[in-house]
Amino acid sequence: FSLRKANMESRAIARKINVSNFMALPITPIDKLTKESNDMRSRMEVMIMKVQADLCRVLEGEENFGKKFKVDRWERNEGGGGVTCVLQDGDTFEKAGVNVSVVSGLLPPGAVQQMRSRGRKLSDGDLPFFAAGISCVIHPRNPFVPTIHFNYRYFELIEPNGNKIWWFGGGTDLTPYYLNGDDAKHFHKTLKDACDEHDKSYYPRFKEWCDKYFFITHRKECRGIGGIFFDDLETPTQEDCFEFVTTCANAVAPSYVPIVKKHKNDAYGDRERTWQLLRRGRYVEFNLIYDRGTKFGLYTPGARYESILMSLPLIARWEYMHEPSAESEEGILMKVLKSPVDWLKPPEKN
Amino acid sequence: FSLRKANMESRAIARKINVSNFMALPITPIDKLTKESNDMRSRMEVMIMKVQADLCRVLEGEENFGKKFKVDRWERNEGGGGVTCVLQDGDTFEKAGVNVSVVSGLLPPGAVQQMRSRGRKLSDGDLPFFAAGISCVIHPRNPFVPTIHFNYRYFELIEPNGNKIWWFGGGTDLTPYYLNGDDAKHFHKTLKDACDEHDKSYYPRFKEWCDKYFFITHRKECRGIGGIFFDDLETPTQEDCFEFVTTCANAVAPSYVPIVKKHKNDAYGDRERTWQLLRRGRYVEFNLIYDRGTKFGLYTPGARYESILMSLPLIARWEYMHEPSAESEEGILMKVLKSPVDWLKPPEKN
Repeated sequence: FSLRKANMESRAIARKINVSNFMALPITPIDKLTKESNDMRSRMEVMIMKVQADLCRVLEGEENFGKKFKVDRWERNEGGGGVTCVLQDGDTFEKAGVNVSVVSGLLPPGAVQQMRSRGRKLSDGDLPFFAAGISCVIHPRNPFVPTIHFNYRYFELIEPNGNKIWWFGGGTDLTPYYLNGDDAKHFHKTLKDACDEHDKSYYPRFKEWCDKYFFITHRKECRGIGGIFFDDLETPTQEDCFEFVTTCANAVAPSYVPIVKKHKNDAYGDRERTWQLLRRGRYVEFNLIYDRGTKFGLYTPGARYESILMSLPLIARWEYMHEPSAESEEGILMKVLKSPVDWLKPPEKN
Repeated sequence: FSLRKANMESRAIARKINVSNFMALPITPIDKLTKESNDMRSRMEVMIMKVQADLCRVLEGEENFGKKFKVDRWERNEGGGGVTCVLQDGDTFEKAGVNVSVVSGLLPPGAVQQMRSRGRKLSDGDLPFFAAGISCVIHPRNPFVPTIHFNYRYFELIEPNGNKIWWFGGGTDLTPYYLNGDDAKHFHKTLKDACDEHDKSYYPRFKEWCDKYFFITHRKECRGIGGIFFDDLETPTQEDCFEFVTTCANAVAPSYVPIVKKHKNDAYGDRERTWQLLRRGRYVEFNLIYDRGTKFGLYTPGARYESILMSLPLIARWEYMHEPSAESEEGILMKVLKSPVDWLKPPEKN
């Protein structure tokens, strides 16, 4: 009986790539994913779907009144789609978004321009591309819990001569509202350990890159206390790169969730809330004015702007000429945002 | 006695251009303004200082508990400066900024790029420029009072061959949170009357330009219900252009203040406040992603970002996938933002 056989086969396939815990069905049909399970496109898609599901569950676990992620699986007319998970107005998380997208089509001229501006030599004309990535921003309610952002992505381009080029990019970074040295060290140490598993040169390079990237030029301050950031990673092998981004993506929860647990019930008042909202205004400034991912997203035809802009906080505030005094807790954070710190530097001996 | 004579002279000069009511001293020394009182640079500076002062006073008059504008007179290392007036956390106005700037120096490459992109043929290299303008955004507290924005500016460029080129630009536009047809008509009628005094073709052309300019591309919606917008105005004569922008700048208060008076005490609740904050999120999106003035400002070396970003609301909100129902008051506004209305079209006969 062929239908029964087909059902059994598809269940076997589903078990094989274990989609049962995913937030939604993957974008690519399961049989295609299974047939092409050795292709980097498939491997990346399955990896990011799994990271999304694992993270959403662990975040839901921090909600005290059972708030859950809202899941939207969407498709893009031009090719591909995504799964957007948003938890809004929770008691621990004011707004948390975890988005997976797997898209393909022709690269828009704006995106080509951007890739050229960072040194890629690309030919003119519409270039076929494939991109699979996970991106996430978590804005907690308590001002003593930092905001975290991460993004890991795999990119393929087909050049006019038929050549396929590919690279990985990504990063994880933390934006606290009040500085806590222990938290900063724990966060950076977790990222460094993930990097060191693959290449000892990664953490120092990617930490510096992160400080440079998440910089609000007009204010001459960093968005947060950094983390790691990299792009155009294509060495030593595709396999090595994939394993590296997999390790990084899996390091997000251990880098962050302990900090959430530690501070989510800290006492705070109006002063701390107002400061948090002001810093969220800076977050909005960075994302809308400078962030490459946001621009790439908004300039891609058929882009799902709700998924791109889920990174914006629920509430943000702008006060004219707000400047905390240097000695205040707020001023202490500002000092670190103005000149980034090496959190893992061994203490100097006298 | 020469010092006494000098003092008397400077007082006579001050009386002549009547700076006593300005929010602060003009940027250009008063004796220079007086000596070059026929130069368009001086005339523009005096005009915008006067419009700033008149508007600030009339807005202060709408505050019920005596809240006043904070006045910052600032100078720019690279040349010129400005006077920024901000009223924050008033009972009628949540955040209102009226900024005058008179700057000169070398045009940054980013700004040259932008001018080229709208069709100006400009030579390479650093071009000496002069710009004098007034810009203003008023975010009221009551959701039934619209936000207004206006900007009027005069621009000069010296080409490498020594040629001086100049033009005027500007506009006034309204961003309501709830649609009120009478208010929309009053606003547009006031602008049309101002335009019609100078050229009957202005209002229809500049109204359309405004709808096109204040468009949030990724959302396919206008920022508000428009008004007028123009750039590169250089005909028929410099004198005519100056008189036109003067009329427009003086039309701002009569176009807006009656609407403030009418609605500032309207009853509202959480629903209206939340919707107002969501629309303010869209305002932030437009200003940070698309607005040419904001970009020009932030890319100008030595720019005073606090004056540029005073246009941002005190508080803004972003909810994932918020969409009001079509029949709601919020949905009725959205319909007009998706397809702009000709507010002054005579009613059709059957």
